[in-house]
Parts: sequence; C-alpha cells; structure tokens
Amino acid sequence: MKRLQYASALTRLIGELARLPGIGSKTAQRLAFFLLSAPPEVAVNLAEAIREAREKVRRCSECGNLTDVEPCAVCASDMRNKNVICVVQDPRDVAAIEKYRGYKGVYHVLHGVLSPLAGVGPQELNIQSLLARLANGVVQEVILATNPDVEGDATALYLARLIKPLGIKVTRIAHGLPVGAHLEYADEVTLGKAIEGRREIE
Amino acid sequence: MKRLQYASALTRLIGELARLPGIGSKTAQRLAFFLLSAPPEVAVNLAEAIREAREKVRRCSECGNLTDVEPCAVCASDMRNKNVICVVQDPRDVAAIEKYRGYKGVYHVLHGVLSPLAGVGPQELNIQSLLARLANGVVQEVILATNPDVEGDATALYLARLIKPLGIKVTRIAHGLPVGAHLEYADEVTLGKAIEGRREIE
Repeated sequence: MKRLQYASALTRLIGELARLPGIGSKTAQRLAFFLLSAPPEVAVNLAEAIREAREKVRRCSECGNLTDVEPCAVCASDMRNKNVICVVQDPRDVAAIEKYRGYKGVYHVLHGVLSPLAGVGPQELNIQSLLARLANGVVQEVILATNPDVEGDATALYLARLIKPLGIKVTRIAHGLPVGAHLEYADEVTLGKAIEGRREIE
Repeated sequence: MKRLQYASALTRLIGELARLPGIGSKTAQRLAFFLLSAPPEVAVNLAEAIREAREKVRRCSECGNLTDVEPCAVCASDMRNKNVICVVQDPRDVAAIEKYRGYKGVYHVLHGVLSPLAGVGPQELNIQSLLARLANGVVQEVILATNPDVEGDATALYLARLIKPLGIKVTRIAHGLPVGAHLEYADEVTLGKAIEGRREIE
C-alpha cells in the first residue's frame, strides 16, 4: 500500500531547516508547519532576509568583521582609537564587546582559533591581514580576546609570539570570576586564575 | 561615540529568524552566522525551499491535510478505505499515524481544536467540510484522534454529538499507558484511564 509522505515541497523545506545547527528533525517539522501556517509575509520576509544577507554581507577588508559597507563602521569611524586592536575569534564577540560600550579601539576578527585536530592552522585564520595592519607603526597595543579555553589560549599564545618581536604591547583579557558569581560554585581552574590575577585595592 | 551595530542585512536576518517559534535572539544570531559562513548553497536552498513550500503547499480540498497535489495522495489513493475517517487536529498527526502503517482509512484535519479562551470556535475549524464528507453515505466510522487533553477531549465530544445523529459509528482513540512505560512513573489520570479501558485477555 502506498504510504503518505509529506508534500514534496514540505519535505524539502523540513530537510533544509534540519541542516541548521541545533535544529533536529522534530524542530524542523515544527518550524516548517509554522512557516506554512503563519501570515504569508513571515515566510516571504525570512526567505528574502536570507537572500539579502547572503548577498550583501561581506568581510571588512581591514578587520575581517562582517559588514555591508566597506570598510566596516568601526574601521571607518574617526571616533575610534586606531592605536589599539582587540583580536577576537568571531564576529559575535565584536557585538558582545560593543555592548559593554567601554572599548574605544578597533577590532580584528580571526574567524576561528587554531585547532590542529580540526585541521585549522594559522593559514586558515585571518592572521596575515592582522600582521599587515601592525606594519604601519600606528598600533601600540594588541588585546588578545580569544575565548579562555584551550584553543583560545593556544591561539593567543601563538599570536603573542608573532607580535611581541614587532615591539608592540600584547595583552590578554583577564581570567577570573564572572561578576555576580558565587565562589562555592566556581570551578577550581577559574578560582586559581582569579587568585593568580588578584590586584591590589587602592 | 557611534556604536557598531551588525550590518543591517544581518540585523534583519536575525530579526526574521527570531520570529520563528522557539527561536530566541541568541539562537537567531547563531543561525544567522551559520547561514553566512556555510557554503552559499545552504542559504540559497533554504530560502528557495521556504518560497517553494509557501507557493506550492495547499490544503487538500477533501481532507484539509497539507499537500502539493489536489486531492492529496491519501484521498486520491484507491488503496485506502474510504469508509473510515480518522479526524486529527494537525497535519503532523497524519504523518505520525502514517508511520504506524496499520491504518488504511482516510483522514480529516481540523487544523486546531475548540478553545473558547483562544477564540477558536467550530467556525474556525475544518468541520463543515467533514460534515459534507459524511453526507455521501459512504463513511461508516469516524475515529476521533484529537490529543487526549482537555481541549482535544472537548473537541472530540463536540464532534461525536454532531456525527452520531447521522447514524455513523463514532470512536475515540484509547487512553492508557504508553508502550514501555513504568506504572510507578505514570500519572494517576493516565493510570485511571488505563484501568477503565482494560480489555479481557483471550
């Protein structure tokens, strides 16, 4: 007996949605049915937004951040301090630091971290253009703001060894307890870093 | 000082993704960056699948299930038993029952359940066309397979009162313990239904 399948266009939509990270087949089904039952403009706008983003958003030739103007708003701004470059692994990290509002320098986005097991070496990262930016003599400090995990730390160390010989100050973001955290719930590595990194109260 | 925002096309994509059910702003960001960094065809295919599904998938004029042929594959099949109609609240329920492979009848999709608080009355559901299908004298049994919750039960009761006077057999799917379940973890309402619905072992 012939068994009912979903309409083929629906099967295809479910399949495409299930390719997104963190979206399993059940969630993909739910999203597909939502897109079919919601007002038509919801689906149309989403399809259009995907197409538009894919078409317009590029990497800034200067810092590597995602942008739809060239160079990006930060690199183009004369309100930003070009003497300090904050190196991050991901465009989302730029957005996170911008929320803090206290950082006035510029950025450099690596688009990843060194990960020999995953086959990511220095060539796969946006490092050459970072070294090119440092060659102009304007930059006085590079803040390494990769994640405080094994790969992020290794990448920071690698970059520090490349950049220090150029006579540029290299700093690493501080490790320690998050604000609002409780000591008793902190893991011992974080606690160790927090104690090592202690500062005198003035 | 001017603050960096995401590129406007990216902001728009994140916003459209965040309108999907169960997708918060963090997940929307993650999906948007995935769509920008994945091979171009991933984004293109998804946008195209959304557009195509929205364009082609319609409700079957007979049973109300989602389909891209008219009538749908089940209604069009001469291998299905047109004497039995299984009434479900959602197209996903049709897919779930089809997986079981033991049901040979046809379906009717209500596209919802009665819910006075949400403003869903009989007019909002695909009930008129169900009554029209019953008028031809072919149907001998209507299986009410709405969910076993308050609204699903109320909807089943409402339909039973409409259909019984037509001289058609009306049945409700069984309540009881799921296969593989442990008695000690079952809630008392399910357990009560399982005991009420006990059947003699032959």
